[in-house]
Amino acid sequence: MSGLSEETKHLLAQASTATLTTQLFKRGLRNTFIQGVRRLTPGAPAMVGEAYTLRMIPAREDLDHPGMFTGQGHPQRRAIEECPPGKVLVIDCRGKLAGGSLGDILVARLMQRGVAGVVTDGAIRDTPQVAPLAFPVYAGGAAAPASFGLHHAVDLDQPIGCGDVAVFPGDVLVGDGEGVVVIPAHLAEEIAPAAAEQERMEAWILEEVKAGQGIFGLYPPDEATLQRYQAARKPLS
Amino acid sequence: MSGLSEETKHLLAQASTATLTTQLFKRGLRNTFIQGVRRLTPGAPAMVGEAYTLRMIPAREDLDHPGMFTGQGHPQRRAIEECPPGKVLVIDCRGKLAGGSLGDILVARLMQRGVAGVVTDGAIRDTPQVAPLAFPVYAGGAAAPASFGLHHAVDLDQPIGCGDVAVFPGDVLVGDGEGVVVIPAHLAEEIAPAAAEQERMEAWILEEVKAGQGIFGLYPPDEATLQRYQAARKPLS
Amino acid sequence: MSGLSEETKHLLAQASTATLTTQLFKRGLRNTFIQGVRRLTPGAPAMVGEAYTLRMIPAREDLDHPGMFTGQGHPQRRAIEECPPGKVLVIDCRGKLAGGSLGDILVARLMQRGVAGVVTDGAIRDTPQVAPLAFPVYAGGAAAPASFGLHHAVDLDQPIGCGDVAVFPGDVLVGDGEGVVVIPAHLAEEIAPAAAEQERMEAWILEEVKAGQGIFGLYPPDEATLQRYQAARKPLS
Amino acid sequence: MSGLSEETKHLLAQASTATLTTQLFKRGLRNTFIQGVRRLTPGAPAMVGEAYTLRMIPAREDLDHPGMFTGQGHPQRRAIEECPPGKVLVIDCRGKLAGGSLGDILVARLMQRGVAGVVTDGAIRDTPQVAPLAFPVYAGGAAAPASFGLHHAVDLDQPIGCGDVAVFPGDVLVGDGEGVVVIPAHLAEEIAPAAAEQERMEAWILEEVKAGQGIFGLYPPDEATLQRYQAARKPLS
Amino acid sequence: MSGLSEETKHLLAQASTATLTTQLFKRGLRNTFIQGVRRLTPGAPAMVGEAYTLRMIPAREDLDHPGMFTGQGHPQRRAIEECPPGKVLVIDCRGKLAGGSLGDILVARLMQRGVAGVVTDGAIRDTPQVAPLAFPVYAGGAAAPASFGLHHAVDLDQPIGCGDVAVFPGDVLVGDGEGVVVIPAHLAEEIAPAAAEQERMEAWILEEVKAGQGIFGLYPPDEATLQRYQAARKPLS
Amino acid sequence: MSGLSEETKHLLAQASTATLTTQLFKRGLRNTFIQGVRRLTPGAPAMVGEAYTLRMIPAREDLDHPGMFTGQGHPQRRAIEECPPGKVLVIDCRGKLAGGSLGDILVARLMQRGVAGVVTDGAIRDTPQVAPLAFPVYAGGAAAPASFGLHHAVDLDQPIGCGDVAVFPGDVLVGDGEGVVVIPAHLAEEIAPAAAEQERMEAWILEEVKAGQGIFGLYPPDEATLQRYQAARKPLS
Repeated sequence: MSGLSEETKHLLAQASTATLTTQLFKRGLRNTFIQGVRRLTPGAPAMVGEAYTLRMIPAREDLDHPGMFTGQGHPQRRAIEECPPGKVLVIDCRGKLAGGSLGDILVARLMQRGVAGVVTDGAIRDTPQVAPLAFPVYAGGAAAPASFGLHHAVDLDQPIGCGDVAVFPGDVLVGDGEGVVVIPAHLAEEIAPAAAEQERMEAWILEEVKAGQGIFGLYPPDEATLQRYQAARKPLS
Repeated sequence: MSGLSEETKHLLAQASTATLTTQLFKRGLRNTFIQGVRRLTPGAPAMVGEAYTLRMIPAREDLDHPGMFTGQGHPQRRAIEECPPGKVLVIDCRGKLAGGSLGDILVARLMQRGVAGVVTDGAIRDTPQVAPLAFPVYAGGAAAPASFGLHHAVDLDQPIGCGDVAVFPGDVLVGDGEGVVVIPAHLAEEIAPAAAEQERMEAWILEEVKAGQGIFGLYPPDEATLQRYQAARKPLS
Repeated sequence: MSGLSEETKHLLAQASTATLTTQLFKRGLRNTFIQGVRRLTPGAPAMVGEAYTLRMIPAREDLDHPGMFTGQGHPQRRAIEECPPGKVLVIDCRGKLAGGSLGDILVARLMQRGVAGVVTDGAIRDTPQVAPLAFPVYAGGAAAPASFGLHHAVDLDQPIGCGDVAVFPGDVLVGDGEGVVVIPAHLAEEIAPAAAEQERMEAWILEEVKAGQGIFGLYPPDEATLQRYQAARKPLS
Repeated sequence: MSGLSEETKHLLAQASTATLTTQLFKRGLRNTFIQGVRRLTPGAPAMVGEAYTLRMIPAREDLDHPGMFTGQGHPQRRAIEECPPGKVLVIDCRGKLAGGSLGDILVARLMQRGVAGVVTDGAIRDTPQVAPLAFPVYAGGAAAPASFGLHHAVDLDQPIGCGDVAVFPGDVLVGDGEGVVVIPAHLAEEIAPAAAEQERMEAWILEEVKAGQGIFGLYPPDEATLQRYQAARKPLS
Repeated sequence: MSGLSEETKHLLAQASTATLTTQLFKRGLRNTFIQGVRRLTPGAPAMVGEAYTLRMIPAREDLDHPGMFTGQGHPQRRAIEECPPGKVLVIDCRGKLAGGSLGDILVARLMQRGVAGVVTDGAIRDTPQVAPLAFPVYAGGAAAPASFGLHHAVDLDQPIGCGDVAVFPGDVLVGDGEGVVVIPAHLAEEIAPAAAEQERMEAWILEEVKAGQGIFGLYPPDEATLQRYQAARKPLS
Repeated sequence: MSGLSEETKHLLAQASTATLTTQLFKRGLRNTFIQGVRRLTPGAPAMVGEAYTLRMIPAREDLDHPGMFTGQGHPQRRAIEECPPGKVLVIDCRGKLAGGSLGDILVARLMQRGVAGVVTDGAIRDTPQVAPLAFPVYAGGAAAPASFGLHHAVDLDQPIGCGDVAVFPGDVLVGDGEGVVVIPAHLAEEIAPAAAEQERMEAWILEEVKAGQGIFGLYPPDEATLQRYQAARKPLS
């Protein structure tokens, strides 16, 4: 259901978000790291998947209340059931943290359906129950109140902002223990191998540093260092 | 082109935003005053009109640059030409103030086309040129940089958030020297005369206060005060 | 020493703050979750107790210095000795985090006296010593400086604001790993069993989700689901 | 009704808040200027008066609604009628600006009763009507919504915080076009003549600067400058 | 004393900061508009001049007090006397607004010495006295307390940040009623005529808009519009 | 390479930052605890060392890009190689968290070189790799983007601000699990034994509290308590 090749997914899952932001910077994209979110599930695997989006605007008392979830038309509930397996549900909560955007039951359903993860610049509720899950959940914080007191869900799979970064449906989101980077769809296949190579070289540089090398000429590498690296370079696992 | 009757418009234009928020509060709506914006054009008339919206997400360097305005498809430029006369252009800039959402040429065009006003929770540029206009411009601030460094325009006339308030196309926006209130579309006809009556009574109460009356029993009025008021009440101009 | 029945305490201690905020929302109370605080003591049990309050205003250099703690009259020190066992000490620090409101010695004394927990929208000091305690401590952050550089303690057991929520003496505070909810005193007995029932049903729903059920008709439950739930429902432990 | 002598009032009214904060700093008080407020009434005279305080905590929906103002017991309304003439009404709104703390009718009543001014770290409503008054009104901003949506008034003439400064009943508040300074009660008589003398000397220094003098040796004055100043010094008007 | 030609100064003084940020954006510089400052002196002329900088770090009580201004070595006072005529004094106050960075006497001295203006991302004190001056003063706000309670002046004419923009000694600062733009030194001569031409064309476009033209094809101009403009273009005054 | 005696280092490493801020407060220094940073490396030892500083200003696109690190002149890279062993690298990032100030390779090099720790009021990148290190790293947060998108490094070992505290080269920084305190250089030798004695007494007081003693007369200790303490006092380890 995803346009990403397995090879690209594999390479991106091994790259850090630090490396990926550098690769994007080199291609002129400076604003790609979602601000103000952290991973709430420390035991989760790396997250890679295309964005499927949900947009929230401020709640209005006459529209947003527990009764509105009845039936099948509510966009928040549709997002849970309609986000394609392998994609990442990305929610625009305008960075508001006074209430949750999702709780443990909806997260469990996403996980059960094979969704790749969830990212919100709002809060998550039921975090004590969510924290132990082996499922990537990135959010701005934890808050007990339900979403309807703060948010009105309006549409699905439209371009949104999340944590001050533009997210278009189909963009590739990669998350690690540091946070989440947004890779524009057309760059994912190009960036994946470049990031893998950067990871490989930096792992070698780190070993050099641990062995006592200074950073001048090493990081970034000068010509001599590059030759040493090429000689030592092993095939990618 | 507007669904508002002339009578409703007339009544709303005479009501203060303070009075209108109270009328909305009485109907269960607490969050109706756009936060963080002020009128940049002190000489403008009261603003009344239905919302026509423009939504911005964070800019992306490869999409947002001066060249993108060429042609007729750009949503920000379409908003300027397509916002119906008599309506208010409301822009969701996510409250970001580091760049402008509009400048003097686009404001001049809105004014020239008979649009009722513009409201943005972002900034306006060319404010020294905009400030003297007899046209309602409400914004979060002034900033010289053009919109494309900060914003990517995505869609027109969809529900948005502006200054932490939900704005649906067709909601009625009223602005005075204090700020802007959003009246849900279905309440405008009901609230207009109630607000006018509240204005009339509060004007009378203010005269009483200036004449030396204390506020207990006067504000809010008790039964005796209400009778005095009814006796003194004059027909609405 | 507390007006809460043991049964109510027992039920509230098993309810999550997420569930309790929903029960309060259904009764018209939207603003009940203390903003900006987190539990600093991961090993603490659930917290349930009535509020006993301490109010701080900004410090003034001539009044607030180490010498002021001498004797028995200082409100901060009186709060430590006078907060009744079983109650929760709630401190209004105006959300200021540049200094601590309490440190390890005072927390140890509260714990030793059988106080149910402490909640402050300011910071706590000596957090490395406080963190391992099996005692509920909720705060906005950690800061080494003593309270007198930032706060002047003024009164005890008066209504206060804490984390943007009103707290009246006798209100019931419940804390879990997500945060703290404030239940107005007159609603505690009513809400406790309703929350317990909601917890029970949501536990069942979560099992259904894990078993592969979709959320439409399940969460919230429609009539058929409710009947299935009633059939499966087991007595409350 | 005020403990301030007319002479002290007269001297303080001629001193700038800049000068008064310097005098307080010299006496060890660094935190005396109310943060985040500005004068909303440009045509008001200088404000001098002792503090009479009103304290607000966050609103609670079941307690705070338009009906609560009926009768004579509501603290906000009592503040309007009970603040002694010549004193300054100071309101602790926790710096929250989403709603007003007072509107034009209550301000008019304060003015009519001879109160010296009003200071709030919250917002004022009906600001278009308030702005032209020759009455000192200092606030954090303008907002149309009534107070009961945001604030619950709890007590009168207790110590409060306002704009991150401690305000005790009886402290002397002085306001000019820059803002408001809080002078602890016991320092007012001492500081008034010292401030007047500083004003006089700085007026002379400013004339020297305009005449072309450099600031070294002049500001602050060295011994020779002080002698020149003493020779030129004229009696205080 | 300035490296700027009179012609460049003349052209820059006629350009708006909006136009200048666009010219800089076209050259790859996105972050050139000083954030969070406004002109405190409405009657001031346009400001053009090279940057002379003063850097402040947080105050330390044992170093920063009124006595430190004695003598000629204090960097803040040296900045006042040593900033070359025609240059702009730019002060890095880390955006802190609780105290002033300069007051009326020092501003008067800068003005008297022929300095081109002052920009601080901190506050100014004595603003009621400063506001009427025909001298460009840009600041983040107004605050009565003297600088030594908040700031420690450390060095002169080093690279600084001001309002989140890098300012190097010699960069050209231009200010109008909207704010201040920082032009890197090496771009000033190139940008000045380009900005003047942009101003001229936009003035013509604005006239077209006022005459009823729509913005498609006009703003930005297409080929036909450019030909019309070239035909109508008048020599630069 | 450090001016601190081993004895002073030993005593400071055993003192908490809470105790040290109290000792500094008693000497008139109120603002010594770095605001907004936390330890990212939970397994690190206590940090003690003299400050070696690096100053960042906002980035400029033409100056700040990956290529600038080539060669040996870049101040950020020089800081890594030139910070003397035993000292603490302190970085002024103006509290900006959208990008990292250092990543895992540079942290590894600092550790390898025997530097005592690193403190930044910006973010750190590669935090998943940095977190397990037994090396003190204090920062405002985690962010994947490299420094050059946000920061321009300007100078080394100059006075800076970090987390709203003044830091002069040679000041002594002490870090524990709560945060980092800055001790002015001339006070370190005096404060170390005073802090050690305070720690010892407070450890004894804490035991008394755990044994059931109330805090009046105990904390702070009255004369009788001091005598009991002196009797129980054991030699310092």
